[in-house]
Amino acid sequence: MNKEEIATRYQQIQDAICQALERLDGKAVFVEENWTREGGGGGRTRVLQNGALIEKGGVNFSAVHGLLPEPVKQAFRVEEEDFFATGVSIVLHPVNPFVPIIHMNIRYFELNDQVRWFGGGMDLTPHYVQRADAAYFHGALKAICDRYNPSFYPDFKAFADRYFFIKHRNETRGIGGVSYDRLTPEKTGLSWADIFDFSCALGDAFATIYAELANRHRHREFSDANKTWQYLRRGRYVEFNLVYDAGTKFGLETNGRIESILMSLPPQAGWPYDVKLQPGSEETETLSLLKQGIDWLAD
Amino acid sequence: MNKEEIATRYQQIQDAICQALERLDGKAVFVEENWTREGGGGGRTRVLQNGALIEKGGVNFSAVHGLLPEPVKQAFRVEEEDFFATGVSIVLHPVNPFVPIIHMNIRYFELNDQVRWFGGGMDLTPHYVQRADAAYFHGALKAICDRYNPSFYPDFKAFADRYFFIKHRNETRGIGGVSYDRLTPEKTGLSWADIFDFSCALGDAFATIYAELANRHRHREFSDANKTWQYLRRGRYVEFNLVYDAGTKFGLETNGRIESILMSLPPQAGWPYDVKLQPGSEETETLSLLKQGIDWLAD
Repeated sequence: MNKEEIATRYQQIQDAICQALERLDGKAVFVEENWTREGGGGGRTRVLQNGALIEKGGVNFSAVHGLLPEPVKQAFRVEEEDFFATGVSIVLHPVNPFVPIIHMNIRYFELNDQVRWFGGGMDLTPHYVQRADAAYFHGALKAICDRYNPSFYPDFKAFADRYFFIKHRNETRGIGGVSYDRLTPEKTGLSWADIFDFSCALGDAFATIYAELANRHRHREFSDANKTWQYLRRGRYVEFNLVYDAGTKFGLETNGRIESILMSLPPQAGWPYDVKLQPGSEETETLSLLKQGIDWLAD
Repeated sequence: MNKEEIATRYQQIQDAICQALERLDGKAVFVEENWTREGGGGGRTRVLQNGALIEKGGVNFSAVHGLLPEPVKQAFRVEEEDFFATGVSIVLHPVNPFVPIIHMNIRYFELNDQVRWFGGGMDLTPHYVQRADAAYFHGALKAICDRYNPSFYPDFKAFADRYFFIKHRNETRGIGGVSYDRLTPEKTGLSWADIFDFSCALGDAFATIYAELANRHRHREFSDANKTWQYLRRGRYVEFNLVYDAGTKFGLETNGRIESILMSLPPQAGWPYDVKLQPGSEETETLSLLKQGIDWLAD
């Protein structure tokens, strides 16, 4: 399993996910843009807008290589000059406020035979947290993880809780999921092939998981107040991505392709001032569940 | 002129601006919130929403004191324990896309008799850049600056150009204005009283300047496409404030009052993917003018 094989398989995952999402949406299609990177490699950015289900969604593939930018060398504390990185990144912002925002990323990075790793994860950001959805989502992720290593789900769930946290709001971005970085055989007891396979299993499960969640709620009626709340939650998503997200920061600092990096931002978001919520409302319930460390699989 | 006098005068400036803006808006009024800071001092946050002219606007006053937070000591490289800071901060997001967003801040900071300074500025972010407005705005600022020191306008204009720059977009946030920091008698050749007076002159001129710009365009008809462009430009405003703005970063890192810090964010913003502009359109013209170093007073 070499880097070309990984990139090819990730590209197939992008294809399969786009096809499944177009079927699921039923109205809009992905617009593709191929781009090349000056230093080496390139990518396929695919964005779908104003669909029946998806208001704005991006499913990006990239495989880039070349000389390691100086800030990265410093961040990784390495002397290496050459790097290779490939991955699939997805963010979907649905029309209906009762359908959650979803994010997935699977990626592979290598400097040489000694320094390489897999990273990624999948997490959910419901505008309205619904326990049954959270249980389904975490259950699906746990089932995938458990096929590889029983410590994956608890470890990666805890990582996601820590990572997707909006410190200045004292809120999690959503209900988390799994997030992992720098996976190697040493750390996991798995072969490189199995770690790769794990990342592909997440990619292969993505469309099924999102279809289940979307189909549960996509036809639910919603009010202007629900849409306003969705804009507010999307505003929090923007705050997380621009203030904390490592991938976004990295992209901005290293002069990445700006439209691909920021395709994660919502089509519309809002910052109404100091919203007061009704006690007992669905919005208040949601806020109470945007906390770290909740066991969504407890019954 | 001691710190209490500065705080009192700044508070009067807040009052006068709020009164003038309510008259100008003609529909909505400011809602005030008084808050106290655990470590000492407090502020008056005033926000107006859903007005005839102003969709969301904040005019905040604060005067805080106490022990200097550790990150600030490090940032300023000082050993001092006690600080005092007071200021007025304003951001107005208008309804009509042809009326510009405006920002003003005047502030005073002191650690002791040796370490103290004034900072602040006023800058304009038109959704549609109109040269006549830019000339009026910069002309008004230059007239104020020139009463104090002939180098103020060119220096502070250049500072604003450097500061209000969205690096990852290679765009300025707007058409700039004046921005200054750490003004002292040593640096300016002025007395403390004159530097203070300069900051008050900006505050006193604010409402008149904004009224002129607002009245030029507030009744101009606009289309959905104009509003969509306004949302996009507001999205850039969010990007600047969350990724680059020193005051916002500082507030988030030092656990400031979050609703006051982020009152600068627009009521609604949008991130449509990879918008293509028509050559020769007003939007294309605007983009061509969001550059550093433009002399708005050249004719």
